[in-house]
Amino acid sequence: MNYGEKSLKVHEEKIGKVEVVSKIAVTNKEELSIAYTPGVAEPCRKIHDNKENVYKYTSKGNLVAVVSDGTAVLGLGDIGPQASIPVMEGKSVLFKEFANVDAFPICLATKDIDQIVKTVKYLEPTFGGINLEDISSPRCFEIEKRLKDELNIPVFHDDQHGTAIVVSAGLINALKLTGKNIEDATIVVNGPGAAGTAIVKMLVNLGAKDIIVCDRNGILCKENNSLKGHKKELAKMTNINGKQGVLKDALEGADVFIGVSAANIVNQEMIKSMNKDAIVFAMANPTPEIMPDLAIEAGARVVGTGRSDFPNQINNVLAFPGIFRGALNVRARGINEEMKLAAAYAIAGIISDKELKEDYVIPNPFDKKIVKRVADAVAKAAKETGMC
Amino acid sequence: MNYGEKSLKVHEEKIGKVEVVSKIAVTNKEELSIAYTPGVAEPCRKIHDNKENVYKYTSKGNLVAVVSDGTAVLGLGDIGPQASIPVMEGKSVLFKEFANVDAFPICLATKDIDQIVKTVKYLEPTFGGINLEDISSPRCFEIEKRLKDELNIPVFHDDQHGTAIVVSAGLINALKLTGKNIEDATIVVNGPGAAGTAIVKMLVNLGAKDIIVCDRNGILCKENNSLKGHKKELAKMTNINGKQGVLKDALEGADVFIGVSAANIVNQEMIKSMNKDAIVFAMANPTPEIMPDLAIEAGARVVGTGRSDFPNQINNVLAFPGIFRGALNVRARGINEEMKLAAAYAIAGIISDKELKEDYVIPNPFDKKIVKRVADAVAKAAKETGMC
Repeated sequence: MNYGEKSLKVHEEKIGKVEVVSKIAVTNKEELSIAYTPGVAEPCRKIHDNKENVYKYTSKGNLVAVVSDGTAVLGLGDIGPQASIPVMEGKSVLFKEFANVDAFPICLATKDIDQIVKTVKYLEPTFGGINLEDISSPRCFEIEKRLKDELNIPVFHDDQHGTAIVVSAGLINALKLTGKNIEDATIVVNGPGAAGTAIVKMLVNLGAKDIIVCDRNGILCKENNSLKGHKKELAKMTNINGKQGVLKDALEGADVFIGVSAANIVNQEMIKSMNKDAIVFAMANPTPEIMPDLAIEAGARVVGTGRSDFPNQINNVLAFPGIFRGALNVRARGINEEMKLAAAYAIAGIISDKELKEDYVIPNPFDKKIVKRVADAVAKAAKETGMC
Repeated sequence: MNYGEKSLKVHEEKIGKVEVVSKIAVTNKEELSIAYTPGVAEPCRKIHDNKENVYKYTSKGNLVAVVSDGTAVLGLGDIGPQASIPVMEGKSVLFKEFANVDAFPICLATKDIDQIVKTVKYLEPTFGGINLEDISSPRCFEIEKRLKDELNIPVFHDDQHGTAIVVSAGLINALKLTGKNIEDATIVVNGPGAAGTAIVKMLVNLGAKDIIVCDRNGILCKENNSLKGHKKELAKMTNINGKQGVLKDALEGADVFIGVSAANIVNQEMIKSMNKDAIVFAMANPTPEIMPDLAIEAGARVVGTGRSDFPNQINNVLAFPGIFRGALNVRARGINEEMKLAAAYAIAGIISDKELKEDYVIPNPFDKKIVKRVADAVAKAAKETGMC
């Protein structure tokens, strides 16, 4: 059986993957009177007196909503809210198993941006954080921005920032290994969707000066007046040398390739045209932009993919459990750039200089140290930047 | 320590009462690939192919949202969504502990009827049922009606129907004990709010012909043109003898008093004016309309209250766990009158004719037989009436 068949079997046997359980028993009148009426009126009163008490007497402070509209699910696209539930339940499972965060899948029967924003706002009292998931680009940018502005709890679109954080962590280590500086490196990002856009912004915050972004039509340039929205914004902040052309042209003399695009669109010639000690993160799923063995044969020194069957898996589970754990621990109002950078450095730091090698620039997601280190780093950054 | 103090202590120690746990472990790459990517794509595809599969591969079929806007919480009133969370978590705990239904508190930051209806509609993909809770009257009527019309999953406002079902169960047994027929009984219902209104409608469906409803201003009459909405509707279907006056007048010669109103508004004189073998369900919380000892001293034969420290507690926990268990078991599209009546008869039937006595017309909520009996009866009624 392959993973798909095994997964089907497990989902059918268990009928879904999440369960809502009680932290207390209710087996007699005394327990009923404490869990429910009349006793429960007392915590209600305390919260009514002071809303902050909601964190003291309810599950809110450890509860994250995993919110999707099912418009960009895995590589499957717009499959609708019902069909997205297995992914959101899976995410909830990972939150609990990795970081003891209670997470609940919320799959919404609307694709309207205003309605999604309103619905999540109405849900705010129950939750301590919002993890947006698998919402199509560019809608995801507006939804996240508006929710960040309007809510007082952390809002985090994992497809954007989780990916950006893990890519950054891998790049920090790969550059260290190859003796390059991010300030001097030429970095090509192919695929300016949700993840690609967040990656570019995070790399800029990490100190990158020379980033070239490509979409289907080639290199994004400030001079291209047909660009709109986030692509226009990306064009403004990248391509300092005004390079023109397609992906092949962008890669000539580049140090780093970051692909969040499509299968097999990079060939060995293109890798050969890159600088020495090239770093290749080919994250198209399930088939990378170039297979690792081909990239290495063509001269790439560090290769990462999104897959668990190759070394250096760029897997969001390295980031989101610890990030929310840290944010919830200090009751951060949001997750800012400093907190994301702290997470990236914490993930990178799991691998010591001595351990660092070509096929180990990104830690194993089951490394027990990760969640606590990331959570502590995120909490510290939240405190230092006044986010809690 | 009283229940309030104990409750506060437990809520603080546990930091809320619900937890979202995983049904499967994720401790290695294999398990991760089954619970999440790449394996999870397969159940997603199956649901995308056929939406009905959402019941096969996700938790939806056993998940109930406990939805409130915090406008009518216990006897505390409009205390807001945050302060209502302990009650909704408590309800979720009872769903799980009594009927193994996974229930999740959803406390909404809006009181707008349209927005509540829209929000719950958008939440539908995730849930197998909706339990509305502590939403103020008369808003609750429109919200429930619209959601019942627009959703394909059971929608049940427990404050209305749960109470009505348990009152009906108690009345079925009390009438049996006193040798009276519901068709001939004069029944006074005081307090036409959410619960009172549902009680009247259910009693009519049980066969009651002579119901008199009182509000703060006295007996509801068809002739009173100032009545609006649900009170106007109640006036049309009750008071066949056109009685006028106040509660005291209504109770003269009545067989049954059902109070969902306020503390101590019935005195012994009023009980004395009732027919022989009077049945008194005085459910104002925490202080009944008349204390049981006073009612009995004044001649009432069967007395029930909402309190656990007196006999015959009219407690919704007798109904809602089994009702949702039954509805979810057969995947009912809704909960209709026949299903509610079936639940009432099932609850009443827990007490055999031999066991029936004045202080035991309503079963103990911890009687293990209840949930299964209610669930089976509700499921049967759903099948027989084409609700599944």
